[in-house]
Amino acid sequence: MSLIKFIEILAILVGAFSGFIEARSKKMDVVGVFTVAFITAFGGGTLRDILLDKRPLFWVTHQEYAILIFVLALIAAPLIRTLRKIVSERLIVIADAFGLGLFSIAGVSEALTAGMPLFIASMMGVITGIFGGVLRDIVCNEIPMVLRDGRPYAICSFAGCWIYLVMQKAGVPLDLALWSGVLAITALRLLTWFRNIRLE
Amino acid sequence: MSLIKFIEILAILVGAFSGFIEARSKKMDVVGVFTVAFITAFGGGTLRDILLDKRPLFWVTHQEYAILIFVLALIAAPLIRTLRKIVSERLIVIADAFGLGLFSIAGVSEALTAGMPLFIASMMGVITGIFGGVLRDIVCNEIPMVLRDGRPYAICSFAGCWIYLVMQKAGVPLDLALWSGVLAITALRLLTWFRNIRLE
Amino acid sequence: MSLIKFIEILAILVGAFSGFIEARSKKMDVVGVFTVAFITAFGGGTLRDILLDKRPLFWVTHQEYAILIFVLALIAAPLIRTLRKIVSERLIVIADAFGLGLFSIAGVSEALTAGMPLFIASMMGVITGIFGGVLRDIVCNEIPMVLRDGRPYAICSFAGCWIYLVMQKAGVPLDLALWSGVLAITALRLLTWFRNIRLE
Repeated sequence: MSLIKFIEILAILVGAFSGFIEARSKKMDVVGVFTVAFITAFGGGTLRDILLDKRPLFWVTHQEYAILIFVLALIAAPLIRTLRKIVSERLIVIADAFGLGLFSIAGVSEALTAGMPLFIASMMGVITGIFGGVLRDIVCNEIPMVLRDGRPYAICSFAGCWIYLVMQKAGVPLDLALWSGVLAITALRLLTWFRNIRLE
Repeated sequence: MSLIKFIEILAILVGAFSGFIEARSKKMDVVGVFTVAFITAFGGGTLRDILLDKRPLFWVTHQEYAILIFVLALIAAPLIRTLRKIVSERLIVIADAFGLGLFSIAGVSEALTAGMPLFIASMMGVITGIFGGVLRDIVCNEIPMVLRDGRPYAICSFAGCWIYLVMQKAGVPLDLALWSGVLAITALRLLTWFRNIRLE
Repeated sequence: MSLIKFIEILAILVGAFSGFIEARSKKMDVVGVFTVAFITAFGGGTLRDILLDKRPLFWVTHQEYAILIFVLALIAAPLIRTLRKIVSERLIVIADAFGLGLFSIAGVSEALTAGMPLFIASMMGVITGIFGGVLRDIVCNEIPMVLRDGRPYAICSFAGCWIYLVMQKAGVPLDLALWSGVLAITALRLLTWFRNIRLE
């Protein structure tokens, strides 16, 4: 299994897992747990593809991800308890930062391919990175955390998308530009998280 | 008028009626009552068609349904009072269960026609069946009831979709497969409702 | 710059500004302020285009609007304070009424061009006019104001859309029909606002 594939699955699992936690904390039943996890994992990419009018959707052609989340949702309650013992909060933050980087750069790259202008492409990157969590919070009847808690999250995504866009326009090899963007977002997110930097 | 047409209209009316009740209980004005009823009746099918990229939408080619809900919204307050006297809660539950079955099987059948893999097709069936109510609750600022109250609803839809899918793949005549799915969902929903069975 | 262009930009700015105010009152950070402003300004038109399956979206081909809202979001806090001193509430209401008229008639006109039946076209006009505000309120975890406060808003849009549709079908010159619709909505909205007329 390639590294990209591994990170991708990790990112989807982290998204689903954050959905499990929020849905359980709202005392949802198993249907709610699956729905919220699914929306968190795939909401951002789905919204981007709808805005770009791109079909088929990612999870439609890769039904194994939907099935995986379905199976995990059935065992969400013991799963959350077990994972909380094994996995430290630090690891979750790192995986989530990686996921933000990967999803964002995948988003901006898709948007460029679809011929979007630069600023819109960067917005599509951010939408892909953050909107799963926004939709999760709307379904759970909360003001979306990413819009209110002042921790840099969307902004890290935005900055990394521009690093990718500038490198790409400057003629840097595609692979280098992609990975620079992903790693910049991950690093920025981790730096601001562990330094506890906040926006106004 | 054919039986299918009759059940279809009944399902839409039941959806709209549940929208009327929730919008009125939130003290919405006539615009809110129409909007919430419309979203409840057509939200699931519309989301499915957007995900499948299928156009035109059902209610766009059948504007008579939109007009009907519009007229009913104008008289929603006295309508709710009258219907509450005439129609027992039992009848509403039965009509709603029928609606869930019909919408779900229509959804899974559309998704199969569009070439979706099996698990995704079953999810599209559930989305068509339940997302009208989910959107209604989001607009009314509630955590969607179907995701939290533990009564089997989406699960009945899911089970019935698989009954249809298995029969269809096994070469059973299409009509029989369709109606088996619809009736299985309706029966499961009524059984779990009247026995008061709950999920975790 | 043509008059239409000027009113269009004004309408988008008014939408964005109402997003700024609501996002700040929810203590959102700069990302939230931008997101909510963007959704308010473009949400209605975007939903309409998704329902009609029309691409590219307006803001995708006109990225200057997205950039403008982005820059304004960065200075939202001092901007709101300054504008509140310079701009009276009366002027905001007038600009908003103009915006409602312009967006609504643009929406109904697009829908007619796409071959929608009349009632659906009028609904598309209303959706374009009001759904930005509905989505703003959903993201901010409020019951959408336009659905509950009883002030005629969607109804003014609906009435004006029909004035346009009737004039258009009666063979009135297109420009005259368009502006009659826009001005009727603006006038109706201002009349009901300043007379403080309420629906049930």
